[in-house]
Amino acid sequence: MSIEDQSGTTVFCRATDYVPKKNWRHFLIGRPLSTADAPHQTIGKFLGLAIFSSDAMSSVAYAPQEMLIILAAAGMTALHLSVSIAIGICVLLAILVISYQQTIHAYPDGGGAYVVARDNINDLAAQTAAAALLTDYILTVSVSVSSGVAQLVSAFPALGPFKVVVAVVFVLLAMVINLRGVKESGTAFAIPTYFFLLMLYTTMVVGFVKLLMGTLGVVDSPPTDLMEAHTLLEPVSLFLILKAFASGTTAVTGVEAISNGVTAFKEPRSNNAAKTLIFMGLILGSLLVSISFLGNYVGVLPSEEETVISQLARTVFNSRGIFYLLTIAATTIILIMAANTAFAGFPRLAAIAAADGYLPRQLTYRGSRLVFSKGIVALAIISSLLIIVFQASVTRLIPLYAIGVFMSFTLSQAGMARRWWKSRNLKSGETIIERGSTLHEDRGWLHKMIINGLGAIVTTIVMFVFAITKFTDGAWVVIILIPLLVFTFSLVHRHYSRLAKDLSLEHYSPPVCIANQRVLLLLGGVHKGTLAALRYAKTLSDDITAVHVSIDPVETKKLQERWEMWGDGYRLMVIESPYRLFIEPLLEYIEEIDRNRKPNEMISIVVPQFIPRHSASSWLHARTADTLRKVLMSRKDIVIMEVPYQVH
Amino acid sequence: MSIEDQSGTTVFCRATDYVPKKNWRHFLIGRPLSTADAPHQTIGKFLGLAIFSSDAMSSVAYAPQEMLIILAAAGMTALHLSVSIAIGICVLLAILVISYQQTIHAYPDGGGAYVVARDNINDLAAQTAAAALLTDYILTVSVSVSSGVAQLVSAFPALGPFKVVVAVVFVLLAMVINLRGVKESGTAFAIPTYFFLLMLYTTMVVGFVKLLMGTLGVVDSPPTDLMEAHTLLEPVSLFLILKAFASGTTAVTGVEAISNGVTAFKEPRSNNAAKTLIFMGLILGSLLVSISFLGNYVGVLPSEEETVISQLARTVFNSRGIFYLLTIAATTIILIMAANTAFAGFPRLAAIAAADGYLPRQLTYRGSRLVFSKGIVALAIISSLLIIVFQASVTRLIPLYAIGVFMSFTLSQAGMARRWWKSRNLKSGETIIERGSTLHEDRGWLHKMIINGLGAIVTTIVMFVFAITKFTDGAWVVIILIPLLVFTFSLVHRHYSRLAKDLSLEHYSPPVCIANQRVLLLLGGVHKGTLAALRYAKTLSDDITAVHVSIDPVETKKLQERWEMWGDGYRLMVIESPYRLFIEPLLEYIEEIDRNRKPNEMISIVVPQFIPRHSASSWLHARTADTLRKVLMSRKDIVIMEVPYQVH
Repeated sequence: MSIEDQSGTTVFCRATDYVPKKNWRHFLIGRPLSTADAPHQTIGKFLGLAIFSSDAMSSVAYAPQEMLIILAAAGMTALHLSVSIAIGICVLLAILVISYQQTIHAYPDGGGAYVVARDNINDLAAQTAAAALLTDYILTVSVSVSSGVAQLVSAFPALGPFKVVVAVVFVLLAMVINLRGVKESGTAFAIPTYFFLLMLYTTMVVGFVKLLMGTLGVVDSPPTDLMEAHTLLEPVSLFLILKAFASGTTAVTGVEAISNGVTAFKEPRSNNAAKTLIFMGLILGSLLVSISFLGNYVGVLPSEEETVISQLARTVFNSRGIFYLLTIAATTIILIMAANTAFAGFPRLAAIAAADGYLPRQLTYRGSRLVFSKGIVALAIISSLLIIVFQASVTRLIPLYAIGVFMSFTLSQAGMARRWWKSRNLKSGETIIERGSTLHEDRGWLHKMIINGLGAIVTTIVMFVFAITKFTDGAWVVIILIPLLVFTFSLVHRHYSRLAKDLSLEHYSPPVCIANQRVLLLLGGVHKGTLAALRYAKTLSDDITAVHVSIDPVETKKLQERWEMWGDGYRLMVIESPYRLFIEPLLEYIEEIDRNRKPNEMISIVVPQFIPRHSASSWLHARTADTLRKVLMSRKDIVIMEVPYQVH
Repeated sequence: MSIEDQSGTTVFCRATDYVPKKNWRHFLIGRPLSTADAPHQTIGKFLGLAIFSSDAMSSVAYAPQEMLIILAAAGMTALHLSVSIAIGICVLLAILVISYQQTIHAYPDGGGAYVVARDNINDLAAQTAAAALLTDYILTVSVSVSSGVAQLVSAFPALGPFKVVVAVVFVLLAMVINLRGVKESGTAFAIPTYFFLLMLYTTMVVGFVKLLMGTLGVVDSPPTDLMEAHTLLEPVSLFLILKAFASGTTAVTGVEAISNGVTAFKEPRSNNAAKTLIFMGLILGSLLVSISFLGNYVGVLPSEEETVISQLARTVFNSRGIFYLLTIAATTIILIMAANTAFAGFPRLAAIAAADGYLPRQLTYRGSRLVFSKGIVALAIISSLLIIVFQASVTRLIPLYAIGVFMSFTLSQAGMARRWWKSRNLKSGETIIERGSTLHEDRGWLHKMIINGLGAIVTTIVMFVFAITKFTDGAWVVIILIPLLVFTFSLVHRHYSRLAKDLSLEHYSPPVCIANQRVLLLLGGVHKGTLAALRYAKTLSDDITAVHVSIDPVETKKLQERWEMWGDGYRLMVIESPYRLFIEPLLEYIEEIDRNRKPNEMISIVVPQFIPRHSASSWLHARTADTLRKVLMSRKDIVIMEVPYQVH
């Protein structure tokens, strides 16, 4: 730490990179690494794709399967519809990619749904986006990890009975890694992402080559658990197709990640980010369609026992050999990584929302381990609970998932459209500041507004399709939860606004100086610790009363004699407690003093506190000050302090 | 509260009976009542028997049954041995009653095993007695409640699958009642105890009358679960008989209760208590033998499904009618009451052991709800866990039970014997003080020593019989646990002894006065709360530095301007935190100041703390002082204080 600047009475200094001392936690979570927010080297498109796309790309592991599961209700013959639906989802994906291009260019400092909604619409939209995104993060963890475990179980069916346990262990693992701090750069992210792409494209290429050569077989002994369950077949209705489409839309979750992280890219960062988004869209779309097509060709069946990826891979590679296992491993890893991105995004969003006064202010210090860790632990606990309640079944979790995602898409796109509309009358070079964000003149505003407007309309429709078709399957939970969260945010916001008003110094005259300090020194005995506290008390005031709660007259007699000798003549108050109570008589005494105090008199309660050598022994010493603080918190002008006495 | 006395600089006052303010806890646990220690009217023999004998008398509900369960291993023909064993247990009971007569007369202020062992043997014996009694209290709760539930299940077999849940609910109920505070006097105890005696004696009398008239039948469709389990019969061996005897000795648990509570009796209290003990012994013995005899006659079979009391009652009353149900109800209630006595005894013992430095000192304030409640909750949790682990089966819990009881009997009797031996050479009227307890001359010392010595020898033998015959059934747990507890007590004792030595004022010269106070005032912003803290800080010292951790330069600029206006010219230190950390840079700064401080300089850290109107909003405000206190605890001469600012 070094002093950097001095101006008037103000001194500035800059904190060095904090290297904490070793303690027991480091066995588990290691020394903290610099977080994602630490200034790191900016990255190119190759690394950018790896870092920001694990969430989006990993969804091809479950989205095609979830479509099939819905279609299965109409029997085997309906399954082929999944290919057409996948193409429909690619259209949706294209609309999103084009819309987000504009967001990336308009927000080179990162434009998440929350920021865009806040800057361009209003508080309610911002709060709704925050609520939608927070539920989205939680469900990303639950769904991705559950799907990852489903891949593992497909390869090793013996794990089947333990899938909930394995999933929870993965969540806890992600928690520990994130408590430790993740370096979001370089190889740690690139290797698994590109390994996944390599394995999936290999599977696809081998599959298509075999198909053209006529050597691609069908799935050997496919799992039949789900098809057998549907003995009464539904007809193929529009509702069923829309429901399958809704399940498939989970493939586009995570597309927004790049627009959040524009700052991480090399200059020209907006261009680089925009290009990366296009690559990601092309990869995601091609994988989605080819998995659906090949899966349909080899006759994969939706199942809770074996995933579509597993059935496809073992059919294409003709065995459960090394290529199959590598594909499964790659898929599992990218799914776990997708969960990991939520662990990074959750506290980041919480910090921004907290700075705006929608969440507890202490979350703004997002890097501070002591606070930061609470968000991560909370995320791990809630998503683990969801996994346990839904038995790590992706199919049962999906109905809760995409509503939040599409709600945030809608708010983001609507915000952008509104932004272009506002900028319509600006002249060249002119700017206006609206809700803290700067608008520039843009000649193409109409064109851009139409694109974002279309994005908003399409995502709204998808959101309603999802909400209606999945309502009874679980979507209702989220439809209730999001307004509740919004309500909570507004309560928090009101609390801070009122507080700011109450604390405001306008029309405030400085308080009168304190005329007198009454010091109460609590005595358990007379010894070195007490004398250290007395020494401190003497710097506060001369009006010191030592207070002792007596349960044993013999001990009290001794204490009294010692105080006469060592107490420097200060008054000793002995409270006899025939009921052997301690806190209660003490409070009674303090309250009496409180009632009779003079104007502008302050009460300071000094508590000697032993600090044993080993913190393990601290349970042998009451923390009286903590107890008093809890009870006397609401009293005006009472300050409680512990004077620590270290025993050697 | 009133001032009572004044001597020199010391003022004495006496706490009034504490009536706390209403808070949410009172919905659940009510306003505290005066505890057992509160001065209440002394009681006669009639109430004394009711108050102190629920533990002992309730054991007739399980002891005869547990004998039968062991004997069942040798088949139906072995069951009749239970009558002879019950008579043997009556002999043991007689020896205990006679021995404890002497304890009651020698300790008119109450002589529990702990006190007797401590006063007359040594520290190790006292610690062992404490360990034995604490395990005894825990198991009393588990065994009594499990047996109570077994009675209920006998009457209402539909409850069978829920017996663990019902048992845990009863334990939690006892916990809530005891957190609320129990008035150990009058009708609350007398009615259920005498109701139980009435119902059991009615059953016995009706049984014997029918037997003499030849109309007593045999158990109609007795439960056969346990007899069927024993297809391979053991021979009747000495080991089996001793094992059955060991199970039966659980009947005498609780006999010592009266000797603990002599002070509660009317004068001449020793005489009254001694007579009550004799009554209790007679009642317990007669019930034990007659239940065994009648049970044997009507052919009750030991079972996990229906208790012996239930089988006997429905055979005697010839139906599951009202008399049967009243008997079961009375038995269940007295068993739950027996558990309740452990909830009263546990914290009382803990307070005495804590005063001697074997347990955390804060337990000496045993009446103080804030501490007291921890012991009660701990007891409820541990005994509930035992119930869950052992599935509320009395048979599986019994092997853990009686070792602690007999160990405490042995230590108590051995202590008494040693006491008489020490008093052998005293002349008439002469007294000596040994380990804090006064010995008087006693002409009958030899006679008394022989009686207590015999008691000690017999209980030692029973303890070993129990430990050996039940070792593999679970007694090993207690045989490991008690030494571990003793070891813990000695560690605690060593900690306090060393501390007392470290803190001792012998050869101590008073510390030099504090030369300077450096005050650090933490600033989040400049507002009324901060100015209140500044006002307080000014009473401490003139050497004040306001410290602000900056994550937002714009906010910092504003803060700086306001401080120039309101900060009374005190220095402002701005720590720029580019990583958005908060606690860590602050600690770094404090540590720097700590390193460079002058001799005899003290650092006081003043933290403004909002106290929101509703405590529900307190999660919206960081408790920075708590965090700092935790981290800086081990630093010398740093005092951290919160200046509360109540928002209105």
